[in-house]
Amino acid sequence: MNQALLFPEDFVAHDRVVLRGRRLTHIQSVLRLSAGDRLPVGRVNGLMGHGTVIRLTDTEAELVITLAQPPPAAPPLTLILAMPRPKMFRRILQTSATLGIKDIWLINAYKVEKSFWQTPWLSDESLRDNLTLGLEQAKDTAMPDVHIRKLFKPFVEDELPALLRDKVALVAHPGTATPCPTHLNQPAALCVGPEGGFTPYEVGKLEEAGCQSVHLGPRILRVETAVPVLVSRLFDACL
Amino acid sequence: MNQALLFPEDFVAHDRVVLRGRRLTHIQSVLRLSAGDRLPVGRVNGLMGHGTVIRLTDTEAELVITLAQPPPAAPPLTLILAMPRPKMFRRILQTSATLGIKDIWLINAYKVEKSFWQTPWLSDESLRDNLTLGLEQAKDTAMPDVHIRKLFKPFVEDELPALLRDKVALVAHPGTATPCPTHLNQPAALCVGPEGGFTPYEVGKLEEAGCQSVHLGPRILRVETAVPVLVSRLFDACL
Repeated sequence: MNQALLFPEDFVAHDRVVLRGRRLTHIQSVLRLSAGDRLPVGRVNGLMGHGTVIRLTDTEAELVITLAQPPPAAPPLTLILAMPRPKMFRRILQTSATLGIKDIWLINAYKVEKSFWQTPWLSDESLRDNLTLGLEQAKDTAMPDVHIRKLFKPFVEDELPALLRDKVALVAHPGTATPCPTHLNQPAALCVGPEGGFTPYEVGKLEEAGCQSVHLGPRILRVETAVPVLVSRLFDACL
Repeated sequence: MNQALLFPEDFVAHDRVVLRGRRLTHIQSVLRLSAGDRLPVGRVNGLMGHGTVIRLTDTEAELVITLAQPPPAAPPLTLILAMPRPKMFRRILQTSATLGIKDIWLINAYKVEKSFWQTPWLSDESLRDNLTLGLEQAKDTAMPDVHIRKLFKPFVEDELPALLRDKVALVAHPGTATPCPTHLNQPAALCVGPEGGFTPYEVGKLEEAGCQSVHLGPRILRVETAVPVLVSRLFDACL
């Protein structure tokens, strides 16, 4: 937690918050703060600054906050991700938030196991919690949007073309001929398949919707590695 | 396992191997192969090709192999990493191997907790197992070298200067003035600190040894995210 992210329900006055639970534990056990100490804070979807601890008990920390700085720029990227295996999903979500990705679509694919969609990590609360951890790591405040689409074909045929408008649209597809561009630094949409990749049918449908297939070289990367590699490659100006 | 990595002890003839344990389970339960089916294989520190299953029992799989293709090029990078927390270490090791990093130095730093060095993941066998998983993911065969240095000062003063010779030497240090270069594509050494970063004293010692401090932008990345971002940024020609 490089910055505590503050939500509307944390505020007890316009410049005062009360923190409990995870953030309190972090303040006590990791940062080991006392009354009078400061820590970086940011208001969700708002400005960043610092908070000064004015009261610390076993159950809550009260902070006076000063917010003045905007959050860092975000790469103009729409990430369209085949729903990952649950044990990877949380980490990918956190990493995506840390990298500044603000628009995440979780879609189905042939190699997405049906059980993946049952994970409790997809609840609104879990999504928010994990995105929060990613934002706190990065020192960002802009909460990403996560869209869940459990049917591949209606998504690709009915929604994807509009989503790709005015963007460079790519699908990461190992073994294809075209390398992924570098330092693109313009609005882009990037589709990343499941473990084992999109099927040829799925790649065909994504191409019909306007995506170009690109590869990342001879190495096959796990999704959790491919996402930072791709963001770094496309948006070196934003990182 | 996009490719089964073969070790000398797997060979029963120059073109035949017998696989047991994890690789057998993968062949049976994930790939669901039968006699006559093929899978990609590679010989550790050697060529890659395919194996044809000629015998499959509950306890072993026998394959006839043909190897002709060299492994992919590797980024010319020496990674010098403050020993990560054990639960992250395994993953960072696998990811580093997948990215093609061949020279890994695990060093001490003030914010490396003493207990991190006690992890069983540092045994020779565990290191080999996790690097193997990373290589199998990438379809690579060249086993990385891992060097363990539990004392910061002797390493930085006595070994590091020679290690940095003829390399671009960088230390990732959030908050410094110089951005990390992009598409360097020449031999480099990269130092990455622990959670919370190197101390100013440590950064000073690394700079004395020849490293330049660089930042990755305003976002603070976890080590497991920073490594793929940095490799992608420095070596776009190798990925």
